[in-house]
Amino acid sequence: MNNTFKYGIIGANGRLGQEVINVFNEQKNSFVFKYDLEGEWISDKPQVLIDCSLPEVFFKSMDYVSEFNCPFIIATTGLSESNFNELKRLSEKIPVVQSYNYSLGIQILLKLTQIAGEKLKDWDVEITETHHRFKKDKPSGTAKMIQNIFKERKVNTSSLRLGNVAGDHTVSFGGLGEVLSITHSATSRRTFAEGILKSAEFALKKKNGFYSFTDVVFSE
Amino acid sequence: MNNTFKYGIIGANGRLGQEVINVFNEQKNSFVFKYDLEGEWISDKPQVLIDCSLPEVFFKSMDYVSEFNCPFIIATTGLSESNFNELKRLSEKIPVVQSYNYSLGIQILLKLTQIAGEKLKDWDVEITETHHRFKKDKPSGTAKMIQNIFKERKVNTSSLRLGNVAGDHTVSFGGLGEVLSITHSATSRRTFAEGILKSAEFALKKKNGFYSFTDVVFSE
Amino acid sequence: MNNTFKYGIIGANGRLGQEVINVFNEQKNSFVFKYDLEGEWISDKPQVLIDCSLPEVFFKSMDYVSEFNCPFIIATTGLSESNFNELKRLSEKIPVVQSYNYSLGIQILLKLTQIAGEKLKDWDVEITETHHRFKKDKPSGTAKMIQNIFKERKVNTSSLRLGNVAGDHTVSFGGLGEVLSITHSATSRRTFAEGILKSAEFALKKKNGFYSFTDVVFSE
Amino acid sequence: MNNTFKYGIIGANGRLGQEVINVFNEQKNSFVFKYDLEGEWISDKPQVLIDCSLPEVFFKSMDYVSEFNCPFIIATTGLSESNFNELKRLSEKIPVVQSYNYSLGIQILLKLTQIAGEKLKDWDVEITETHHRFKKDKPSGTAKMIQNIFKERKVNTSSLRLGNVAGDHTVSFGGLGEVLSITHSATSRRTFAEGILKSAEFALKKKNGFYSFTDVVFSE
Repeated sequence: MNNTFKYGIIGANGRLGQEVINVFNEQKNSFVFKYDLEGEWISDKPQVLIDCSLPEVFFKSMDYVSEFNCPFIIATTGLSESNFNELKRLSEKIPVVQSYNYSLGIQILLKLTQIAGEKLKDWDVEITETHHRFKKDKPSGTAKMIQNIFKERKVNTSSLRLGNVAGDHTVSFGGLGEVLSITHSATSRRTFAEGILKSAEFALKKKNGFYSFTDVVFSE
Repeated sequence: MNNTFKYGIIGANGRLGQEVINVFNEQKNSFVFKYDLEGEWISDKPQVLIDCSLPEVFFKSMDYVSEFNCPFIIATTGLSESNFNELKRLSEKIPVVQSYNYSLGIQILLKLTQIAGEKLKDWDVEITETHHRFKKDKPSGTAKMIQNIFKERKVNTSSLRLGNVAGDHTVSFGGLGEVLSITHSATSRRTFAEGILKSAEFALKKKNGFYSFTDVVFSE
Repeated sequence: MNNTFKYGIIGANGRLGQEVINVFNEQKNSFVFKYDLEGEWISDKPQVLIDCSLPEVFFKSMDYVSEFNCPFIIATTGLSESNFNELKRLSEKIPVVQSYNYSLGIQILLKLTQIAGEKLKDWDVEITETHHRFKKDKPSGTAKMIQNIFKERKVNTSSLRLGNVAGDHTVSFGGLGEVLSITHSATSRRTFAEGILKSAEFALKKKNGFYSFTDVVFSE
Repeated sequence: MNNTFKYGIIGANGRLGQEVINVFNEQKNSFVFKYDLEGEWISDKPQVLIDCSLPEVFFKSMDYVSEFNCPFIIATTGLSESNFNELKRLSEKIPVVQSYNYSLGIQILLKLTQIAGEKLKDWDVEITETHHRFKKDKPSGTAKMIQNIFKERKVNTSSLRLGNVAGDHTVSFGGLGEVLSITHSATSRRTFAEGILKSAEFALKKKNGFYSFTDVVFSE
């Protein structure tokens, strides 16, 4: 079978880890290694290593990457500056893909927002994000990623909390006589696992280098 | 010609006054009296009097109502408590319709929001309003009317300022597993003039009484 | 424990049946009877019987209702006219609640649409429904329920098929100068189980009668 | 006064022509020539010529362009193939900008749709357009421009007719677990006049060549 590969997961038992296993196995890839709260399990040396765990076990991930010496995809959130420095050092030898959001649709929204923002510099901009009532932080991390596109100006962001909405984001541009909006609605976690699969396939073709998920999506 | 009538306008030269004249004349009603910055003009005694002016000339409106002794429709905003008291005294003798918003669609939105709110008491509620960038006050007066429906609880309201949007209002209810939204978008001033026409036709059938535009729309 | 009850389910192993068990048990009600492909299981006589099965086993459901002589909530779709006649005969002795859609939000949307439709008779109406790409029938059953509200006129309905959208429905009313829209988005099956719980609690207070889910929601 | 210019308009008395005059004069440009149903008026030789007329007077426009030998911006719709050929011949000597839609927002929507379409090849696509009830043709010309972006596949387009909506267009992309939408709403004709101003300023810097409004917006 061509183009399939052996993979390992750190944080395999979490919700994202489980979804990654589903999506990778559907494509006939082989699950050969995991590390989790329950410990380590290995049946073969992985060709790519996925990290869906927590920053607390980052050092453990680094050990495994050194051991397997294979492409590394990291989805862990809340990394420190020293974590990033270590990832960059590592990326001199192997390909590393790092992102806080592996949704393809969000990457497209970010790209489209950047292009529209450059062309509509004197239009008003508004960001709206809607999430489930249990989400405490405002605005969402993704809303902050959108805000960062508009470096030179402060963009108002409205946060709505409704039922169990998985996550909607809208960027609206308002000119005199017209409004242009870009909206993304997430409905399942599967999209993140597919983004990680895409990243693994991307990294397997590289020799080394530090990449974001934006690179994966747009350097095709 | 049946069902047509003679009407007068206080504040005839303003933007709303002009729109009222357009809409009333399309229906073959006769414009017979006006009072404005330029003074008074009269060709016949009006059967109904419309006030599209400012609270500053409220006393003058009261003089004309007494003189003509006919139904009175008032769209003036920013009335004081004593203005309201005077209107109510007046309504013992003649029909008075008073509202700050004569849009039919907004009345329907208010009614639907009330019904949904009663049935969805444990759902989350969010109000969003979008207006042109020149609108200074937040939230809009109409958003406040929506908030007032939810007496017992504080409802979060998001205000967006975009280009020259005439006025959009959305009320969203979020339960676990579903979201219900009601949205109104205004695109022209004409709708207000049509609401005033409806109110005039309503008042012409009454002997006396103090009515809101909600009464006009829902007591049919 | 007050206000809790013993319940039985026909079609307990289906996706809706499982969700019903989750929701009912969260409220401390007791699961005492089931009938499914695997056969019958009983630990006590139920006080209310829920049918989440298929029209093929309708006769079996009727046997159990006769045996238990308790309120009956039926969510089975595709019932025949003779099935309905039997349900109505049955409802002379016991309370029966029947609906093809136990989502509270959809009931509210139907009610609001009816109210708005009566007040906005000369406005244009458009229905839009969006579902996952695998849904073959157009328009959706719920869209047909909305169409039926506008008896006297043919309402255009647009059907969109996108990804794995669970189900969105919008009714838009357009006047000159304004648009009013009502939108419902479903994100999980849980809402149906909650509607069935509400129906069970409603039926337990009745002596007999044939009720729709609309009755349950609006006769409170 | 720097960067201002003298301009002429063919079709000056139409609704678009009037809006162009407003917008150009706000920027202190000088209106020096017009041709209309009422005939010709000229006070000076224009540096740029705008055509807001009908294909019936295309030959007349060509005469004036030859006479003035200046950049030419044409907004006339319904041009024939021979009209286009003549424009292209002309563009060897002078700069010509031609478009059926000078709205900046629509250009951005087209560009974003193209970029998203390339990255989301296996997602579903749906186009929706909403216009006033008097619009007879379905789908709108702009919707066809959007359809043309998806050369290789047939994209379903829903047309809604509501009140006096000026023009809304939405492109939605649906993947498994997410939906991405781009929406444009037009609220006034002013936006077209601003696009024509931008095109005039662009053309004044060119020696010759045939350009679309997309070129104007994106070659900056």
